[in-house]
Amino acid sequence: MDKIAIIGLGLIGGSIGMALKQANPQGLQVIGYDSEPDAGRKAVKRGAVDKAPWRLIEVIEGAGMVIIATPVLSIRESMENIAEMLSPGCVVTDTGSTKEAILGWAEEFFPKEVSFVGGHPMAGKEASGIDNADPKLFQGARYVIIPGKGADENAVKAVLDVVALLGARPYFMHAQEHDSYVAAVSHLPILLSAALVSATTKSPAWRDMSRLAATGFRDVSRLAGGDPVMSLDICLTNREGILYWLGEAIKELAAYREMVEASVQQEGAERLGESLSKAWEARETWLTRYESKLDDDDRQSATAIPSASSTMSDLFFGTQLKERYQKILARQDSPSKERRPRPKQQP
Amino acid sequence: MDKIAIIGLGLIGGSIGMALKQANPQGLQVIGYDSEPDAGRKAVKRGAVDKAPWRLIEVIEGAGMVIIATPVLSIRESMENIAEMLSPGCVVTDTGSTKEAILGWAEEFFPKEVSFVGGHPMAGKEASGIDNADPKLFQGARYVIIPGKGADENAVKAVLDVVALLGARPYFMHAQEHDSYVAAVSHLPILLSAALVSATTKSPAWRDMSRLAATGFRDVSRLAGGDPVMSLDICLTNREGILYWLGEAIKELAAYREMVEASVQQEGAERLGESLSKAWEARETWLTRYESKLDDDDRQSATAIPSASSTMSDLFFGTQLKERYQKILARQDSPSKERRPRPKQQP
Repeated sequence: MDKIAIIGLGLIGGSIGMALKQANPQGLQVIGYDSEPDAGRKAVKRGAVDKAPWRLIEVIEGAGMVIIATPVLSIRESMENIAEMLSPGCVVTDTGSTKEAILGWAEEFFPKEVSFVGGHPMAGKEASGIDNADPKLFQGARYVIIPGKGADENAVKAVLDVVALLGARPYFMHAQEHDSYVAAVSHLPILLSAALVSATTKSPAWRDMSRLAATGFRDVSRLAGGDPVMSLDICLTNREGILYWLGEAIKELAAYREMVEASVQQEGAERLGESLSKAWEARETWLTRYESKLDDDDRQSATAIPSASSTMSDLFFGTQLKERYQKILARQDSPSKERRPRPKQQP
Repeated sequence: MDKIAIIGLGLIGGSIGMALKQANPQGLQVIGYDSEPDAGRKAVKRGAVDKAPWRLIEVIEGAGMVIIATPVLSIRESMENIAEMLSPGCVVTDTGSTKEAILGWAEEFFPKEVSFVGGHPMAGKEASGIDNADPKLFQGARYVIIPGKGADENAVKAVLDVVALLGARPYFMHAQEHDSYVAAVSHLPILLSAALVSATTKSPAWRDMSRLAATGFRDVSRLAGGDPVMSLDICLTNREGILYWLGEAIKELAAYREMVEASVQQEGAERLGESLSKAWEARETWLTRYESKLDDDDRQSATAIPSASSTMSDLFFGTQLKERYQKILARQDSPSKERRPRPKQQP
């Protein structure tokens, strides 16, 4: 392959371009396109692409592979626009966050001589755009690959080559399976993050409250600070899975609310502690595995966490803590009401 | 003041000790205590305290100021334990995340000759413990100060001196006001984070899903990875505010769920886009202010964001985007159902 075209020169497209150029397989030409001419200029300057012509046909013509790295609904537009420009035998891939709709569009728009292989790199960061592109963004990350119906073996191999050049780990899945999983681990977090921001910032007290918002608020609200066009496109193309997981999250929050309410009693406080402790444990287990880039059938990582978790369990159900709660709870049947009439202090 | 005692040598207590030692006001002795002897040893090694005797009386005796930096319910225990050891005129302060209960305990346990001044530094990070202590942790952070009922002016001044040495910005508030605000901006995020982890990890598909969890999941679940004892103590001492904000968050998530459901129609998709866009804008506005450490009556920061927001608004309600959605939505009345029967692909 002599020429790869990248459509969409944001964080993902730009990072792919930089990684390809730096790996520099002999003679490979990387041409880019972005609807924002400024992004194209910057991509050339940052070494993500050799050039970024403003006419799409110049970008696509003669390319052995086209990588579409735009928000999901724009992928559809790009597919429609490039369909007639593609050379026979061309491989098209994408980096979109939902896959079922995208595979459907590929079937709808592309001729049989073109192979479509869906892709989804599980990598990202808060800051978006070509300015934040990083050739190392994908190193060690999982890269979901979902070959389209008519994709031939060589097309899949070509995409695997690109994934290898990026330093990512290929991972084959069904589109429906992919979409239902990312609804839980990628898209639900976006909406939890947005709901936190919507709920707090619409409060009449937000101006005052916001002065106390710090690192915790910053992290949980991070995804609400992501491109809202990307988030909207995700919702529109993975509706079913997102609705299911929003329902689960609402149930879970209602359960936490009930536990907080019941925590005036020792038994309720212990249940709440147990839930928080289980969540802590599950998150640590996941994080250890995620950071070590180990696959979960790899036994090496399976030993580290259980010991930490039993410590935490001991801590929670050990007598020391039980006594501690008994002491507190006995005295504070309704602590806030008791203390409410205390005169307000002002320095 | 010649001697300051710190009870609790974790991230916060350790960081305060290091900052005090490094600022090194002439002759100041910093003595620490932790129920984990290991934390005491490490605190000495890291230069957070001059020594960490295992007998509490040695730590407290003769101290002009005692700083309690433990989880909230342990603050109560410490207060009870040290009450009779305090020298007359001693200033006691704390770093707990809820303030009303703590101010009540101070009244309950301390003699009149002791001044209690509640404190809450709005700083933290994911990694906890003395190993992660950092003398710069508080630089530029807000530091809430709530003098107790009988606290004298000199006691408040002494705490202000410490806050100044930490490089933090003092911020006076009422305890009730503080607790209701942090319920929204600190404690609700903890429970949203825990609910995300609880909901996803209890799914039978978690083992498979977890392989796709990446940076988005990591960030929104970060607070679920915090010390569950700290989180539980917060819930038990700020119940009312947390219940209110959990209710608001559930309403907000239900509203998002309804918008995602309605997004099969152009009008619904636009409403969802508008909500995501507003959340994005509110979060950017907050983040700019937070990172610039500007107070919100400072006019300098008030100009930067609105221009960005109108760009986003244009983007959403500009004709280009409207057309884009019309095109998509016209074709996909029920896209997932349409495509569901497509045979599963396997590489």
